[in-house]
Amino acid sequence: VTGPGDAPRALLFDVFGTCVDWRTSIARAGARAGERLGIEGVDWTRVADTWRARYGPALETVRDGTRPWTVLDVLHRESLDEVLAGAGPADALPAAERDALTLAWHRLDPWPDTAEGLARLRRRFVVAAGSNGHIALIVGLSRHAGLVWDAVLGAELAGTYKPRPEVYLRCARALGLPPGEVMMVAAHNADLRAAAGCGMRTAFVLRATEHGPGQTTDLAPREGVDVTAADLRDLAARLGA
Amino acid sequence: VTGPGDAPRALLFDVFGTCVDWRTSIARAGARAGERLGIEGVDWTRVADTWRARYGPALETVRDGTRPWTVLDVLHRESLDEVLAGAGPADALPAAERDALTLAWHRLDPWPDTAEGLARLRRRFVVAAGSNGHIALIVGLSRHAGLVWDAVLGAELAGTYKPRPEVYLRCARALGLPPGEVMMVAAHNADLRAAAGCGMRTAFVLRATEHGPGQTTDLAPREGVDVTAADLRDLAARLGA
Repeated sequence: VTGPGDAPRALLFDVFGTCVDWRTSIARAGARAGERLGIEGVDWTRVADTWRARYGPALETVRDGTRPWTVLDVLHRESLDEVLAGAGPADALPAAERDALTLAWHRLDPWPDTAEGLARLRRRFVVAAGSNGHIALIVGLSRHAGLVWDAVLGAELAGTYKPRPEVYLRCARALGLPPGEVMMVAAHNADLRAAAGCGMRTAFVLRATEHGPGQTTDLAPREGVDVTAADLRDLAARLGA
Repeated sequence: VTGPGDAPRALLFDVFGTCVDWRTSIARAGARAGERLGIEGVDWTRVADTWRARYGPALETVRDGTRPWTVLDVLHRESLDEVLAGAGPADALPAAERDALTLAWHRLDPWPDTAEGLARLRRRFVVAAGSNGHIALIVGLSRHAGLVWDAVLGAELAGTYKPRPEVYLRCARALGLPPGEVMMVAAHNADLRAAAGCGMRTAFVLRATEHGPGQTTDLAPREGVDVTAADLRDLAARLGA
């Protein structure tokens, strides 16, 4: 079952951006906190963007061994302080509110096609989360968003973050499958490139507004991607599920 | 939320025996292989019982560090050879059939109440598998049996087997909860005793025929169990789910 024409046995999903819309969810959570506290004049979408921009560098400190395994809640909470320090009136947000806003990453809304597409795919394939989010985060987010997985795998299982190959390989091993029988599903070419480098198949899902209407990245798949889909319903159709 | 009168946030389930009927499932798989191969005069229920009896000692070699983390498929396959060596005509089973019979542990049937009870409990609580079965085994078994989990945790995550405390503590950590907010659900007092020793709450589910009609063990809960239930539907009712 490893030839290019054969179906994979399992699908491993990126979650942030691919399954859920972190940007509008986080911006809305920030705006609600601001309203409640009477903090005005903050561009919460910009806060969401700058917060997310610190994600890669924060993960890199774990990937390169500078710090031991650290869950996203801790990394998010630290980088929120850095983001708010440069965000004018938002810097008035008290510590307890920052803790609460950090947990908004556990309650991100899905894209409109995600729950249905995933449920259709699960009828035919083993579906697993292969996120950099830790297990508790993905469990909370999936219950909020109505996403049903056969297993929540990902970075916590490997003790490091994507795109380190250990993460993809550990997930395939947990599924009891060679990487060639697993298909990584993501809206991000870097994730798919790393998965392909580990021998996985790849499916690119277009999320053209993950970063807002002016998005310039990941608008087309990298060369060599096995399947390209407009969303998860389309992926289900293309994979015969 | 940690007082004895409060509800837990998550339920961690033992699987073999508690959720699925390994004994009749394995006996049937053996009988089918025997029929197909013309092997007669084998008491396959006895094979299932003696196979399961080797489970504890096999796990102990990992628990005590004699051997590194080894998944149940490997331990089951090794002990099957030992079991069949003393099982008369069943010892004619070829190696490939032994491999296939080992995978019957990935397709155990649920007790009649399990899928519905678990689905009801999942509406109110985070539900996670906390089995000694590795992730691939529990994923396959759960798809076969129609069991839906928020997460598949358990021994593989901890790198050792229950009842070592590391397993319960690692599962609680993956759920992002202190042990006192997690309830271990099992048909086995030894499992519940170890979970309680780690600070978890405990629910005893009666499975009076797990070991057949003559079962003498685990017919009543240990002292100090928080909830006792006749099955998983009853547990859902008792926990208000």
